[in-house]
Amino acid sequence: MSETMRTISWDCGRITTIDQTLLPVEYRVIECKTVHTLCEAIVSLRIRGAPALGAAGGYGVALAAHTSTASTLQEFMRDLEIESDRIRRTRPTAINLTWGVDRVIAAVRRAGSIDEARKIAISEATAIADEDVERNAQLSRHGESLFEDGDTVLTHCNAGRLACVDIGTALGVIRAAVEEGKEISVVSCETRPLNQGSRLTVWELMQDKIPVTLIPDSAAGMMMRKGSIDKVIVGADRITRDAVFNKIGTYTHSVLAKEHKVPFYVAAPISTFDPTGLERDVTIEERDPDELRRIHDVTIAPADAAVYNPAFDATPVDNVTAVITEDGVAYPESKSWNDLFS
Amino acid sequence: MSETMRTISWDCGRITTIDQTLLPVEYRVIECKTVHTLCEAIVSLRIRGAPALGAAGGYGVALAAHTSTASTLQEFMRDLEIESDRIRRTRPTAINLTWGVDRVIAAVRRAGSIDEARKIAISEATAIADEDVERNAQLSRHGESLFEDGDTVLTHCNAGRLACVDIGTALGVIRAAVEEGKEISVVSCETRPLNQGSRLTVWELMQDKIPVTLIPDSAAGMMMRKGSIDKVIVGADRITRDAVFNKIGTYTHSVLAKEHKVPFYVAAPISTFDPTGLERDVTIEERDPDELRRIHDVTIAPADAAVYNPAFDATPVDNVTAVITEDGVAYPESKSWNDLFS
Repeated sequence: MSETMRTISWDCGRITTIDQTLLPVEYRVIECKTVHTLCEAIVSLRIRGAPALGAAGGYGVALAAHTSTASTLQEFMRDLEIESDRIRRTRPTAINLTWGVDRVIAAVRRAGSIDEARKIAISEATAIADEDVERNAQLSRHGESLFEDGDTVLTHCNAGRLACVDIGTALGVIRAAVEEGKEISVVSCETRPLNQGSRLTVWELMQDKIPVTLIPDSAAGMMMRKGSIDKVIVGADRITRDAVFNKIGTYTHSVLAKEHKVPFYVAAPISTFDPTGLERDVTIEERDPDELRRIHDVTIAPADAAVYNPAFDATPVDNVTAVITEDGVAYPESKSWNDLFS
Repeated sequence: MSETMRTISWDCGRITTIDQTLLPVEYRVIECKTVHTLCEAIVSLRIRGAPALGAAGGYGVALAAHTSTASTLQEFMRDLEIESDRIRRTRPTAINLTWGVDRVIAAVRRAGSIDEARKIAISEATAIADEDVERNAQLSRHGESLFEDGDTVLTHCNAGRLACVDIGTALGVIRAAVEEGKEISVVSCETRPLNQGSRLTVWELMQDKIPVTLIPDSAAGMMMRKGSIDKVIVGADRITRDAVFNKIGTYTHSVLAKEHKVPFYVAAPISTFDPTGLERDVTIEERDPDELRRIHDVTIAPADAAVYNPAFDATPVDNVTAVITEDGVAYPESKSWNDLFS
């Protein structure tokens, strides 16, 4: 990836992004010129990662504004609402997506004309993307102080630059620690079934020359028992007062970390917080059974096998040492934690 | 699989087995006419599973005896020792393989001629295979009483008919419970990186019409937390006084089971027990890094990614509710447990 290329950006009426399903084999920049194309890109995980989805939601509304053929402001707003609903439904668990959509819709409501609405939509979406980069920089600086020279850090899925507009959350913290001169080694779980760990995290860190070792998800327990893991850090797709929602497997790592007294950190911007919801209110997205039956054209299970393929799990906050946000380090049940939900 | 076909058998000077790397796409019976071919089949996991490897070790010595061109008994025994060493080295953690080899070698030493030695080798190897089937039948009857009507049982890897000469250990117990009229549902972890769960366990159970649901290894924690798993049962590759060695990921499941108060059972014949060794004495086999970088011709990680790919992990016996053998149910630290190591 070029050092200056953002994972997602707006370019003259089109959303430009990297097709993450093709990595690490191919680095291909794709364009979404319609909300339909954007939704397909989100559903098929060409764009993924909670913070990147926030920007995608915002830019998606900008795209809807850009492509609407409405002749009255009322009709235009109705177009935007319909398209916004379509975008929100692509990934029901990811709160950032809805957050990005809602923020741009709210801004657009101030407009007195279609032209003004279009300008506001683009500038608000761009603000979301710019703020994501700034927030991740702040979050990374806050988090890096938790890591020590020589640490081996386990991570799951990809909470890196590719999951955000730039820098990354969990991997942003690791990058900031490395920039401070600390030697950090990363253990990346492959993250079945879509292998975001092997395909994206390993690739990103190798690009940055940060030492990284790929393991099967199931080897995390053995490594913690051997004392080979000093800390765990992951991102999040949604954080309620009682639970952190993240890629399936995160909960298992949290139980292992508790068993082996390994600190378990979550790095996520405040836009990930769901101030009113509780774990029981959140729908866990179930994905296509074929993700476990085939890898491209390779069959790895009977074609008619019954499959349970949840995209996320919930980690109770009791298992979380701290959550790192752009505002600092919040310890569950502390005052700063409670403030995040007030 | 035909109901009467054993996973591994001796047929007129050749070992006949199923190429398990091709399942579930293709059911292909292969023949090993030389020790070299057999070793390749073991290394590449065409034959795998602790009890099946015991039979493969025994038949391997029979094959060495059958193909030796020695003209004196002394020369013949030297041939057998060389070939036996080659077989033992293919899978260093699997104790059954060495056990099968050693048992046939010990029997052959009684022979007074090459002809007699060949006959003894074949009959001793065949006895190992026959006893495996009988032992699994006994083990399954002992184990099934631990399972209740309506249980959902999680298993990892394949400790089924395909891992044995027939019937299976962990899956043998489930089959016996089903034969007793109990409704049992199985949750099969896919078992990365070689997917023995998705490819073999799911296939085997679907053949038997036992309900089975495939999950990623990383979803076991979430399912236990939701109360969806009543029991765990796995096989074993080696059992020392202090630990159970089994497919990587077993230890993680044991920690999750402890956390959620789910009984954790191991089903394994007594040939799996290592009466003198301790966990610290056992070498954990590390396998080819490419198992995590590619699936057939599909690239899932950078080609030069650093990889840690242990085949097994060690579960301390504290995490094990009971071990089911052909002699009954042994509870760690009980008298019957200690007897297994005396």
